[in-house]
Amino acid sequence: MSTTKLAAKNSIKKKWWGWGLESKSFDLSHRPDFLPFLETELSVSIRQHKPAVSLKEIKLPPIKISEEIIKEFEEIVGRENVSSNDLDRITHAFGKSYRDLVRIRKGEITSCHDLVIFPFSQQNITEIIRVADKHKIKVIPFGGGTSVVGGVEAIKPGMTICIDMAKHMTKLLNLDKTSLLATFQAGVSGPELEEELNERGYTLSHYPQSFEFSTLGGWVAARSAGQQSTKYGKIEKLVNSLKMVSPSGEIETRKIPAKATGPDINQMIIGSEGIYGIITEATVKIHHLPEAKDYRGYLFQSFDDGIRFIKELIHEQEVYPATVRLSDKTETKLLFKLGEKKNSFIKDKMSDLVKTYMKEIKHFSFDNMVFLLLGFEGTNDRVSYDTGKVNELLKSYKTVNLGKKMGDRWYESRFDLPYLRDSMLDMGIMVDTLETSTTWANLEHLYLSVKKGLKEGIEKTGVKGFVACHISHIYHEGASLYYTFVAKQNQEKELEQWQIIKNEATDAIVENHGAISHHHGVGADHARWLPAELGETGMNMIKGIKEKLDPNMIMNPQNIIHD
Amino acid sequence: MSTTKLAAKNSIKKKWWGWGLESKSFDLSHRPDFLPFLETELSVSIRQHKPAVSLKEIKLPPIKISEEIIKEFEEIVGRENVSSNDLDRITHAFGKSYRDLVRIRKGEITSCHDLVIFPFSQQNITEIIRVADKHKIKVIPFGGGTSVVGGVEAIKPGMTICIDMAKHMTKLLNLDKTSLLATFQAGVSGPELEEELNERGYTLSHYPQSFEFSTLGGWVAARSAGQQSTKYGKIEKLVNSLKMVSPSGEIETRKIPAKATGPDINQMIIGSEGIYGIITEATVKIHHLPEAKDYRGYLFQSFDDGIRFIKELIHEQEVYPATVRLSDKTETKLLFKLGEKKNSFIKDKMSDLVKTYMKEIKHFSFDNMVFLLLGFEGTNDRVSYDTGKVNELLKSYKTVNLGKKMGDRWYESRFDLPYLRDSMLDMGIMVDTLETSTTWANLEHLYLSVKKGLKEGIEKTGVKGFVACHISHIYHEGASLYYTFVAKQNQEKELEQWQIIKNEATDAIVENHGAISHHHGVGADHARWLPAELGETGMNMIKGIKEKLDPNMIMNPQNIIHD
Repeated sequence: MSTTKLAAKNSIKKKWWGWGLESKSFDLSHRPDFLPFLETELSVSIRQHKPAVSLKEIKLPPIKISEEIIKEFEEIVGRENVSSNDLDRITHAFGKSYRDLVRIRKGEITSCHDLVIFPFSQQNITEIIRVADKHKIKVIPFGGGTSVVGGVEAIKPGMTICIDMAKHMTKLLNLDKTSLLATFQAGVSGPELEEELNERGYTLSHYPQSFEFSTLGGWVAARSAGQQSTKYGKIEKLVNSLKMVSPSGEIETRKIPAKATGPDINQMIIGSEGIYGIITEATVKIHHLPEAKDYRGYLFQSFDDGIRFIKELIHEQEVYPATVRLSDKTETKLLFKLGEKKNSFIKDKMSDLVKTYMKEIKHFSFDNMVFLLLGFEGTNDRVSYDTGKVNELLKSYKTVNLGKKMGDRWYESRFDLPYLRDSMLDMGIMVDTLETSTTWANLEHLYLSVKKGLKEGIEKTGVKGFVACHISHIYHEGASLYYTFVAKQNQEKELEQWQIIKNEATDAIVENHGAISHHHGVGADHARWLPAELGETGMNMIKGIKEKLDPNMIMNPQNIIHD
Repeated sequence: MSTTKLAAKNSIKKKWWGWGLESKSFDLSHRPDFLPFLETELSVSIRQHKPAVSLKEIKLPPIKISEEIIKEFEEIVGRENVSSNDLDRITHAFGKSYRDLVRIRKGEITSCHDLVIFPFSQQNITEIIRVADKHKIKVIPFGGGTSVVGGVEAIKPGMTICIDMAKHMTKLLNLDKTSLLATFQAGVSGPELEEELNERGYTLSHYPQSFEFSTLGGWVAARSAGQQSTKYGKIEKLVNSLKMVSPSGEIETRKIPAKATGPDINQMIIGSEGIYGIITEATVKIHHLPEAKDYRGYLFQSFDDGIRFIKELIHEQEVYPATVRLSDKTETKLLFKLGEKKNSFIKDKMSDLVKTYMKEIKHFSFDNMVFLLLGFEGTNDRVSYDTGKVNELLKSYKTVNLGKKMGDRWYESRFDLPYLRDSMLDMGIMVDTLETSTTWANLEHLYLSVKKGLKEGIEKTGVKGFVACHISHIYHEGASLYYTFVAKQNQEKELEQWQIIKNEATDAIVENHGAISHHHGVGADHARWLPAELGETGMNMIKGIKEKLDPNMIMNPQNIIHD
């Protein structure tokens, strides 16, 4: 778990806030193949440098909340915990989506929270919401601020406050070693949470890509997925119980493993993205730190082969790895182009000699090769049983085993890739991701349809680009598809360009029976597609709860329900 | 799976309807120890015989729905599928709870559905609900009629129709072998469903005690649990997607394995017990028929030992059996008293010789002994790994291995026990069950508290009785507790007597942080305790959906929401 501790100790938080404000870059110096690859694929010369504006250049809209009301909030949490200063308002204005970065790098903040408030307790939050409800002030909860779907933004007009949970509400409240449950305040960040657990011999093992900054409350509110979700489950499986404060009252669900007492209240709160209230505490299922971890990389001859292998592993052998990640042909190429040369394990493995051997003697075809990462965690015996089954199954596939070193490298650098986005924005390159999920039967169809949508979207904007994809988060009946798309930015029309592509892709998802999101959430960005996925009656179920709990519609009103 | 097929072929359905109407009895002829045991424990002589009234003696309340309206329903499903005859009204009046049996055995039906309607399709149901909503007629969906919590009864005054799903809506609509998903109409019964799947090589493996009669729609509506739920999951884990018709519209959730598109609509419908609408279809996760099944019985020296063993198995070894069932001391005694003598495996095992050997040589103490059943299912290798781990762990416990024969006998007779209830009612003995669930940390406390509640309740009614319990349905953070209580009936005050005991037990559950129900559901019987478990805000979330989907409050109005 050294990565985790390092992350916590390095106070990367500061770096994160730098995204888009400073030029915090992914280190490309040892990856000489990457930029030439981009230049060829995108038909551009990408040496130009376009840094973000400095903090001082950003102009904020005026504060709409009166001094009198501000005093009411100050009485609850103290003066020093009600902030209207520029830095707080800027750093809480957006999440971390491509749209957010484009805007903040230009210094374009046309709307933002009037105040940022830092509560200490559920009691504080109850009182804050009471004051806000009285004055019809919109309330937007904020954890790590890593939403990539516009989930924390003050989009609707009118007074808005942002409740930052991550400053004071980070405590471990209870550790139940008998039931393997831990209760935390919702503002605890990934590294803080794992550090508390690890030093006592436990782990939650929920590692979304945003892990370094995102919070437990944010994970729950947005239905996040960790990279090891295939073993441990998405956050909705990891939550045992919750506390939430809504404008019409507090709720505390019981610490119960399973029950038959009506519809599941936990599952109504999980994924509610702040529209019903603020999640203040969560009790989650923890595990003993695993005895063994075994991460390995493989090359398969084709995407189809890889999918068939994964399905056999789970359906025929009942073996569920912690991490399964199968890159398509394009993503595999991209990964190899991003490979470091100083310590080039891949290069060794893929040396001409090996390649020739694989091709000529083993008849492995590299034309459509794809990369599969498999990670196992657990007791020594369990991991050894599971990896034994993998090896048995592999005998009937043509593969190249890239070994443990490749797996370990992936594991160590598993939170790094988003940082590359800033370097690319500096160079005028758009890069964004989106994800969906579907059944195994519909997987290939959806894979191709969304890829087509993304490609057509990029084409519409008159530039050249490429679309990479991987399958991850494996379930009994299907999997998630995670897309990365890269293209030259249309300068001064970056947002319009992005929206055109996003529309094509999301339309393709909706039309072809995917989920609009597998783990990014709905936010403001996806809300207008949601009725197509859930239907009018489904939307009414969500609205029915909203109207009952938040009759003045002050809670995070841009999310989920589009009007 | 021969049990399943047999169940289906024997058309036990007829027998089931006989419950309480005919004297359908559990065969006690080969169990000579049981009645003497009861006589001693309850201080009664139980030879008296009090049969149920005959069908013809039952007087039904008059039909409140006009001929005109009946014609509207007949136009939808045909005349032969709208029944107002006595037999249909009687057999749909109640579920199968102790209260239900007491009343129907006496012929006391003071309120019942005016009509029983047998639809063929979702379209039929949409039209029926439209007519009902227009005339403010209450609509009660009915599957196998096995509710033990008053979930299908016409309790509220006014016109009521019962929609029997189990006659025509039983079809397998789609089998997706690639995703291992099967879509059925909601009225399919357990045996019908397994037969359809088994003959194609698949299984759902959801075996609630009511399996022979209950339906997929009923399982979903009431959040049922199967005896193999520790491996396969309760029904809420087995459902992939649903269709439901509500008075304000239809809903179809997407076939998606997991997603982040707001609160989980499936989990709002699952457990809604008909208060939002009628579930018409469900898509469920299926498995290949398991290569291996391994069920075994063990004796442990104490309940504590058994619990510690189960926890070690799941927490330290990550081994989750299909079935785990640990009887307490009293239930263990009861099981042995119920043992058959004609083929007395237990007697062999427990012969004086063995007993002496265990006691003297192995120092096994029989004073507080408890019975543990463990069942494994899956691939040969998986079952062999898991049972290997069991054997390793067992080395550090003092146990008697009763072997596979004991396990197989449990498996074969696993649906039989409820039939014993009728024989006991014939003899003037009350027997009922209730269940709860909690965390491992709270398990012993809740176990003792509810037992105390039940015992005090029985005492209050002036009779002698006993309370048996087992732990089953094992989860990461806890388990379910399943109680059986037995006492002499207070003749002519059977329902008041039962209510006194039920109140004490349920109060104890609520006060000591249990779930009011683990898998029986809320129904009418538990509704008044629900606010204590879910809180006012939790209830408001449920009510918010209800008001939106069913503004005239016609759907199954006695369930969940108490007023």
